[in-house]
Amino acid sequence: MPENMRPHVVVIGAGFAGLYTVRSLKKQPVSITLIDRTNHHLFQPLLYQVATASLSPADIAAPIRSVLRSQRNVRVLLAEVVGLDLTAKTVALDDGESIPWDYLVLATGSTHSYFGHPEWESKARGLKTLDDAIAIRNQVLLAFEAAERSNSEDERARDLGFVIVGGGPTGVELAGSIAEIARFSLAHDYDTIDPTQASIRLVEGAPRILMAFPESLAKKAQFELEKLGVRVQVGSMATHIDEEGVRLADGERIEAATVLWAARVQASPMGKLAGLETDRVGRIAVQPDLRVADHPNVFVAGDLAVLKGPNGKPYPGVAQVAIQQGKRVAANIAASVAGEETRPFHYFDLVTLATVGGNYAIAEIWKLRLSGFAAWLVWIFIHIAYLIGFRNRIFVMFQWAYGYFTYHRRVRLITRPGKQAD
Amino acid sequence: MPENMRPHVVVIGAGFAGLYTVRSLKKQPVSITLIDRTNHHLFQPLLYQVATASLSPADIAAPIRSVLRSQRNVRVLLAEVVGLDLTAKTVALDDGESIPWDYLVLATGSTHSYFGHPEWESKARGLKTLDDAIAIRNQVLLAFEAAERSNSEDERARDLGFVIVGGGPTGVELAGSIAEIARFSLAHDYDTIDPTQASIRLVEGAPRILMAFPESLAKKAQFELEKLGVRVQVGSMATHIDEEGVRLADGERIEAATVLWAARVQASPMGKLAGLETDRVGRIAVQPDLRVADHPNVFVAGDLAVLKGPNGKPYPGVAQVAIQQGKRVAANIAASVAGEETRPFHYFDLVTLATVGGNYAIAEIWKLRLSGFAAWLVWIFIHIAYLIGFRNRIFVMFQWAYGYFTYHRRVRLITRPGKQAD
Repeated sequence: MPENMRPHVVVIGAGFAGLYTVRSLKKQPVSITLIDRTNHHLFQPLLYQVATASLSPADIAAPIRSVLRSQRNVRVLLAEVVGLDLTAKTVALDDGESIPWDYLVLATGSTHSYFGHPEWESKARGLKTLDDAIAIRNQVLLAFEAAERSNSEDERARDLGFVIVGGGPTGVELAGSIAEIARFSLAHDYDTIDPTQASIRLVEGAPRILMAFPESLAKKAQFELEKLGVRVQVGSMATHIDEEGVRLADGERIEAATVLWAARVQASPMGKLAGLETDRVGRIAVQPDLRVADHPNVFVAGDLAVLKGPNGKPYPGVAQVAIQQGKRVAANIAASVAGEETRPFHYFDLVTLATVGGNYAIAEIWKLRLSGFAAWLVWIFIHIAYLIGFRNRIFVMFQWAYGYFTYHRRVRLITRPGKQAD
Repeated sequence: MPENMRPHVVVIGAGFAGLYTVRSLKKQPVSITLIDRTNHHLFQPLLYQVATASLSPADIAAPIRSVLRSQRNVRVLLAEVVGLDLTAKTVALDDGESIPWDYLVLATGSTHSYFGHPEWESKARGLKTLDDAIAIRNQVLLAFEAAERSNSEDERARDLGFVIVGGGPTGVELAGSIAEIARFSLAHDYDTIDPTQASIRLVEGAPRILMAFPESLAKKAQFELEKLGVRVQVGSMATHIDEEGVRLADGERIEAATVLWAARVQASPMGKLAGLETDRVGRIAVQPDLRVADHPNVFVAGDLAVLKGPNGKPYPGVAQVAIQQGKRVAANIAASVAGEETRPFHYFDLVTLATVGGNYAIAEIWKLRLSGFAAWLVWIFIHIAYLIGFRNRIFVMFQWAYGYFTYHRRVRLITRPGKQAD
């Protein structure tokens, strides 16, 4: 097919779902435009390591152009999408440009949700972007500096108070890493304070943490967290958040200068922009082949899509699902272009992982349940294997190996001091 | 001497001068307070490599507390100094605290100066802090992205126009690195633009670039810059800077979306704060032993001090001078505490270095003049040797080795898109 006659595929979002869609279309007779607001693909599963000063932003982010350099049929645009017209088949960009498409793939993922408390956003930062991670890193490190300079016991206790709202994998990783920072990395760096006296609390509304895992593994993770000095509070909702702490549903008030949000997410607003029906958290319902009903040329993949798996529950918002859905979308576009039937998405649930800090992780691999160092090795292996870009891989391995032996946090930088709350 | 009777030395600024003062006082019977606005010591000679996407911020910045962890007689404060009282012998901090001192060391360095054109600051970013470096990196990378999306030839040319004002080492390093980015790192990453068509101009008011070097070496450096595609314009002052370019004294108008400032610096305002006399650019005149006249317990070191060398010219504002002055200040404080005579500062001018990009540098080592690859090896060796913190050293070496073979720029991250002008 001559190049200018090829169907034009527009992919919005260069996260796992979008990027794997594009890469899997490499040899297909289509021309692709990939649109993202940022110039990098972000390896979100390691974002908490940037937030807790173990990795540099560049270690977990690869420039999209560089990742796709060898792919000839794709054009990359750094742009914000401001409109979607599914009838005229166009995408409107922030600079006024309108891009026509034959196939549209929506893969813009999710962002935080504050349960209808938008005022909490400025007080309890969530962790979804590199800017979030840098802001959290600044906030955590500045809390210890503020404690060193505080004039009263009350003030010091508040400065050294950390509350993480949400006991999923991100909340557990953040709580464990902050405990490590306090107990090991900073332990001997201050004169008037003892960082190991920091109070780190993990608050979860459900009856236990890590609901996506079997209870036996979640219990082990909780035990490890507690060994690191994290106080875990389940069945407990935050009902009020301000600059100085959190109030829980049972009336308890926790004084804490640092409150982090790892509770709930909502889908990015593409569904609304497209005029499509969405569920309560903004996700777009898709058919088993990941197409949108009545719009056979529109696909949705990753966190933005909602599709029930064989167990009747929606697929979880994790990288593995996004990657596999991206590949399925690409295969179905290829089938459609070739005049063949599309096929339904099947999830191959390789492994469910969470790490607590130190060298402790929990893993469920098929029916096999692992915890401790073995699970941590699996965690390392999986994350290295999927980390995009050869150079990032060796750097990150090197840094982990070093950190493993020293508990050293290389990236203890406070940038933009005084602006950490923005 | 009992610890609470020891003289209290307050050092303001944790750059080369301040940090080397503190480290050299390690075994002296004094108690030290080191105050800095940031939590990290910055290796400024490599800042341009952060600005041009070769190194991550953490590679050239070491947490002050971590650098000084093994030193028992120092306390570190993250704080802004808002007042200096040389009579009452106190330092006032932004949180209202007042710190008494027996010896005061001022080492707060320098910042940009816009020749009485403060309105240029928002249009032509200078390079002094990590935040500057990140902002410049964002601006340079966004310029190529804007060009890819531009609608007219004029717009594209302006987006791909870069003007660096100032032909000292920083200006030369920035110009050379941006040319490398355009010619090698990004050459094949775009569809509608050819990054190698970027116009990179270096503008210097003096009759030649690199005035601190012998003319023969500066000529070689200029030739190398021109080989990389940089157009060098000497004897040429910027008389007007706006969002779309620069006007020169000879009337020429250069259209360029990116204008960077590497021209002149001024000392930080400590002299004014202390009520001391300063020169035209805010530096505090010191006596040969680095003390301030009439204030025998007040020392100034690094870029903030002005002292004439044996050749009648002030010592240059480079790291070597700051390091050696810091050591001299420490020795003189120790002498004063011991009731001995202070000694004058003597500069041991080890080597003057500048790098052009690629693997080309120029070096003057005593009377020996080197250029090309040999000088570049000297440059690498010196910078690695002085880079504070073992871990940073191996990381940076590793990244240079990798970059040397691949021209790969690992840190091509645009953060906070749309806010690069702040």
